[in-house]
Amino acid sequence: MITHTVQGVAVRNIERADSAVIDALARCGAATVHEAQGRIGNLNPYMRPIFSGARIAGSAVTILAQPGDNWMVHVAIELCQPGDILVVGTTSPCTDGYFGDLLATSAQARGVRGLVIDAGVRDVRDLTDMNFPVWSKAVSIKGTVKNTLGSVNVPLLCAGQHVMPGDIVVADDDGVCIVPRQNAEKVLKAAQAREANEGEKRQKLASGVLGLDMYNMRPGLEKAGFRYLDSLDELA
Amino acid sequence: MITHTVQGVAVRNIERADSAVIDALARCGAATVHEAQGRIGNLNPYMRPIFSGARIAGSAVTILAQPGDNWMVHVAIELCQPGDILVVGTTSPCTDGYFGDLLATSAQARGVRGLVIDAGVRDVRDLTDMNFPVWSKAVSIKGTVKNTLGSVNVPLLCAGQHVMPGDIVVADDDGVCIVPRQNAEKVLKAAQAREANEGEKRQKLASGVLGLDMYNMRPGLEKAGFRYLDSLDELA
Amino acid sequence: MITHTVQGVAVRNIERADSAVIDALARCGAATVHEAQGRIGNLNPYMRPIFSGARIAGSAVTILAQPGDNWMVHVAIELCQPGDILVVGTTSPCTDGYFGDLLATSAQARGVRGLVIDAGVRDVRDLTDMNFPVWSKAVSIKGTVKNTLGSVNVPLLCAGQHVMPGDIVVADDDGVCIVPRQNAEKVLKAAQAREANEGEKRQKLASGVLGLDMYNMRPGLEKAGFRYLDSLDELA
Amino acid sequence: MITHTVQGVAVRNIERADSAVIDALARCGAATVHEAQGRIGNLNPYMRPIFSGARIAGSAVTILAQPGDNWMVHVAIELCQPGDILVVGTTSPCTDGYFGDLLATSAQARGVRGLVIDAGVRDVRDLTDMNFPVWSKAVSIKGTVKNTLGSVNVPLLCAGQHVMPGDIVVADDDGVCIVPRQNAEKVLKAAQAREANEGEKRQKLASGVLGLDMYNMRPGLEKAGFRYLDSLDELA
Amino acid sequence: MITHTVQGVAVRNIERADSAVIDALARCGAATVHEAQGRIGNLNPYMRPIFSGARIAGSAVTILAQPGDNWMVHVAIELCQPGDILVVGTTSPCTDGYFGDLLATSAQARGVRGLVIDAGVRDVRDLTDMNFPVWSKAVSIKGTVKNTLGSVNVPLLCAGQHVMPGDIVVADDDGVCIVPRQNAEKVLKAAQAREANEGEKRQKLASGVLGLDMYNMRPGLEKAGFRYLDSLDELA
Amino acid sequence: MITHTVQGVAVRNIERADSAVIDALARCGAATVHEAQGRIGNLNPYMRPIFSGARIAGSAVTILAQPGDNWMVHVAIELCQPGDILVVGTTSPCTDGYFGDLLATSAQARGVRGLVIDAGVRDVRDLTDMNFPVWSKAVSIKGTVKNTLGSVNVPLLCAGQHVMPGDIVVADDDGVCIVPRQNAEKVLKAAQAREANEGEKRQKLASGVLGLDMYNMRPGLEKAGFRYLDSLDELA
Repeated sequence: MITHTVQGVAVRNIERADSAVIDALARCGAATVHEAQGRIGNLNPYMRPIFSGARIAGSAVTILAQPGDNWMVHVAIELCQPGDILVVGTTSPCTDGYFGDLLATSAQARGVRGLVIDAGVRDVRDLTDMNFPVWSKAVSIKGTVKNTLGSVNVPLLCAGQHVMPGDIVVADDDGVCIVPRQNAEKVLKAAQAREANEGEKRQKLASGVLGLDMYNMRPGLEKAGFRYLDSLDELA
Repeated sequence: MITHTVQGVAVRNIERADSAVIDALARCGAATVHEAQGRIGNLNPYMRPIFSGARIAGSAVTILAQPGDNWMVHVAIELCQPGDILVVGTTSPCTDGYFGDLLATSAQARGVRGLVIDAGVRDVRDLTDMNFPVWSKAVSIKGTVKNTLGSVNVPLLCAGQHVMPGDIVVADDDGVCIVPRQNAEKVLKAAQAREANEGEKRQKLASGVLGLDMYNMRPGLEKAGFRYLDSLDELA
Repeated sequence: MITHTVQGVAVRNIERADSAVIDALARCGAATVHEAQGRIGNLNPYMRPIFSGARIAGSAVTILAQPGDNWMVHVAIELCQPGDILVVGTTSPCTDGYFGDLLATSAQARGVRGLVIDAGVRDVRDLTDMNFPVWSKAVSIKGTVKNTLGSVNVPLLCAGQHVMPGDIVVADDDGVCIVPRQNAEKVLKAAQAREANEGEKRQKLASGVLGLDMYNMRPGLEKAGFRYLDSLDELA
Repeated sequence: MITHTVQGVAVRNIERADSAVIDALARCGAATVHEAQGRIGNLNPYMRPIFSGARIAGSAVTILAQPGDNWMVHVAIELCQPGDILVVGTTSPCTDGYFGDLLATSAQARGVRGLVIDAGVRDVRDLTDMNFPVWSKAVSIKGTVKNTLGSVNVPLLCAGQHVMPGDIVVADDDGVCIVPRQNAEKVLKAAQAREANEGEKRQKLASGVLGLDMYNMRPGLEKAGFRYLDSLDELA
Repeated sequence: MITHTVQGVAVRNIERADSAVIDALARCGAATVHEAQGRIGNLNPYMRPIFSGARIAGSAVTILAQPGDNWMVHVAIELCQPGDILVVGTTSPCTDGYFGDLLATSAQARGVRGLVIDAGVRDVRDLTDMNFPVWSKAVSIKGTVKNTLGSVNVPLLCAGQHVMPGDIVVADDDGVCIVPRQNAEKVLKAAQAREANEGEKRQKLASGVLGLDMYNMRPGLEKAGFRYLDSLDELA
Repeated sequence: MITHTVQGVAVRNIERADSAVIDALARCGAATVHEAQGRIGNLNPYMRPIFSGARIAGSAVTILAQPGDNWMVHVAIELCQPGDILVVGTTSPCTDGYFGDLLATSAQARGVRGLVIDAGVRDVRDLTDMNFPVWSKAVSIKGTVKNTLGSVNVPLLCAGQHVMPGDIVVADDDGVCIVPRQNAEKVLKAAQAREANEGEKRQKLASGVLGLDMYNMRPGLEKAGFRYLDSLDELA
């Protein structure tokens, strides 16, 4: 069992989920997927997209990086396959700009779909023009060095979430969700079931039906002792 | 006098300000209104709009919610009237996504103009497409449950500001300002007076007149002992 | 030697770098310039642009302001020349909105190119329409007074960086970099050398060449003891 | 109804709770009182005592202060009676040192029991020697001026909590709790009931009885679907 | 392989390291142990002891708790053995006071040595008197409920560090370090080797030998291009 | 003029203020000295002492360190004289433990009086036993490496304050103040004048004289429009 971080290694071969399942998860979006797997897997909401409108999913190629050092990103790109997403965690908190347009060019050439980094990024204008989406903690002009070893494709923490190489990353304007590879199909089914459901609900609510009635919440409120008052004066 | 938070109640009837006054306050914008009422009523600047360009005002329907629980939002929507704005405060700090496209659909069906929430929101892409503006502390995929009672239409704190149900909320790209209902007309007059004034000032400044002269600041600077030096070397 | 902050003075005459050099630095962008001068001069990444797409450089007219007091901004505008950028530091942390559309109108009338402020700004919609770029710590409706003296064109701190009047400010979507006036040409040369280099690198990477090979990183990895594993199981 | 902050006034006469009730609340301590009044009234836990071991209660004399300005503290001390506690909120966040040994000397001469301040304090060594307890957000050498009006004995916010003049402040090493004056006796009874109870519970737990059994939690766990596993391997 | 958090289970039996090894690790202290295992395993430094002077080590009984809910702490205490340390992580950030004198009494009755909690604690005066050490993120009077399931003895995150049940916790005034159970002996040897070394070093340094010489740093400085200047003027 | 940070150098000779002046400043304390030099020079209040009761002053030997790297501390100790205080700033924010009992032993052997570090420290128990005072941003078990050059005795920023080598550091339980070397005597005189004054004020206040009267504040309040109300009801 792998329980603690290892430094100085790269794992060449990782298992990935079925690409059709991954793409279908992307269409569901991060919030629905998060809901569908029981409200777990969310990255900290300080992770924000550098441009809006992207909605992607892919297999995590994980990068454990030292603060201010992006050496391992170069190592990771060689191990990427089309459909992968780079996921970077650091051994100490850092906001430096680990990744810019050159790395994005290289990553896109390998078919990488995007980057999720618990640190900073730069060249955001170029990345936007390239349509290379990034979710990051910061945007920073401060670059990095290539001096100290981290690891690639090891389990790591990214923005408060545990990520295994090969886990599915689902990311959009709402944030980022991690789905364990083994659960991909099960979560997809649950997500699609939620979605099927939502169209009808949306229509009802648009027509003026209240959530209180549609979800039958009134008995629960009453049971919990909820009281309606006619005016604020009754609270005096 | 209501001085402390009450949990487990909803107040059905609240007084609202005149809708013409409210709409006129929206046209003035949050910064001008804030200035006009003596620099009070501003929410903490961590409250940011999910899309830019919205400028609204409305009557506050207040929601005191438990952390991670959006039950009270459903209760509140039933009590809304066209022109209202939902204002959510929480009993403990929370960044979870309390509100998404289904609740927005329901709120829009009741004529609700927007949401101000001292917590998180999700489905921001859908909300943008629906033109349903939100000012929030966070965007988060992490949803909420419906287990624990809060209150609706009670006095509460939102982003460091005291809000009474029926207070006027003015919100735009600059942030959010609360105007006590009783002061609405007085504040509107002051805001409009400021605005009348501003066109002329803007023209003067654009033509090259200095603020120092337009506001007659030079005597005050001199009186306060302000000194002009010819170069940095004089400080040595 | 000026080592500590002085209050209550304005320096009329400051030296500025050559305008052709300044404009050329703008074209390089903040990240490249930061890199070119040895990874120093970056402002804290909490400084964010109020709209995206601007890329400017100019000579710093520095403003040391009291918290919640923008008196000195008016003093500074008189001392500006076309091509200048206002740089505001405060004597205590503050997020209030020091600067809005009237001050921007006045500044633009003097040829000021933008504002970098370690505090708040407002009227962001108007500033966007005017194409007056601002990098700030906050957007806030809370205005300021004009009561207490600060200084203009003195050395100060802004977002964690020391700035001298006349230093060159380079700012874009990635953030803000300060270049000491005396180093402007040297830094420009280094920045342009980096840029010349980048086109070729980009092409190679786009064609599939790996950074590992292009930068000849493999010997260094090996020397540092980096190991490749075939699968995660080898870590067990 | 007082719903929004007023500046520039001092209220001379405020109602205070019975001093025997106040002293009895002090003996219960802040955590027990907080529990007894239904888990409300707690100040933000960033409020820390400058020395440990103090446990006090008193009537709130409230001070709404401008950032960096302690003028109103002087106004407030005149209005204090023996048994009062100064409660300072600010109109903008501030960590400056508003209060030191001279003000403490003056306050102690009036019988003031301590200070709760959502800002900074200084001379902490002297205050410790004087046994004048303070709960604050910061310790800071940076003093304040006496230039701008605030108010005394108006409703205000302190560390996220609404405080009315005359409310009871209970403070100890665990933090600070506010009890509305009108509820003082009711809360005291509930607090004393909790305490009566605690001795017996403590004895049982010390003898090895488990909370699971003492509080009869096992049926609830079972009903909620809680499962016991023999080893971690069952989770694989 | 356990890679993601499970809710609603307790694992009865966990493996623990040899108690003599654990006690020897305590004597080395958290900083030395952290150093000895290669600078990993440290909890975030926001974790502070409620009183100074404690230095303990023990086997982690892990508790994954919901925000504001301490139900699982009661479940965990039944599963503790003498020499254990409770380690609490939460599913969302929380500063509430999960633990007070009653739980400490119960835990001490089971031989529990202390608590490490990525949330708040209360009754700190009583806990100090009982000599029950706690490392926490906050001290808070705000108590918790017992409504929602978490888990006991599952892998979890605590203050940015991954903890497995049975891992060794070493904690003192400097902070908290986690040692994977399997590595306990190896880390102890490395820690003791460091310590053996330190006495001699301390003596040399006390006698005036410089670290520059003792560690033979001068050649490295020279090789890296480090320059000595006679005075600041040479930098001009 | 030195305006920007230099890396990779150590300045051997710095000017220091008169030791009698330095020692007299220590007796005044940090808050009084800060006040006496016009309310400037204060370090950010997040800088806290590791134990209470120390009150020192000394000449700054400045250390600009890389994040997580304490190599320069060793370089600095060689350049220290009795009466110096080490002042550490970092090139990026860091909370690692740069300094422990071995470095303190070496520093004490050179007559160094203490450490002010805008980062972390460890072995706080030993440092307390050695009576070696430290003001730091954090306490952390995480040690540092000795890989990358910084500088010694260059101008730097520490906790938001500019420090020149040879400036006087005054530190006590209230925080840390920097006095420019050239101003030492002038500031001392002002500080001693304040102190002379304080004894009399303290006596008056202790006898019940109000600050309002002692400082003759009533006319100013009246002029500013301050109003006294008899009761809260007048605000309704």
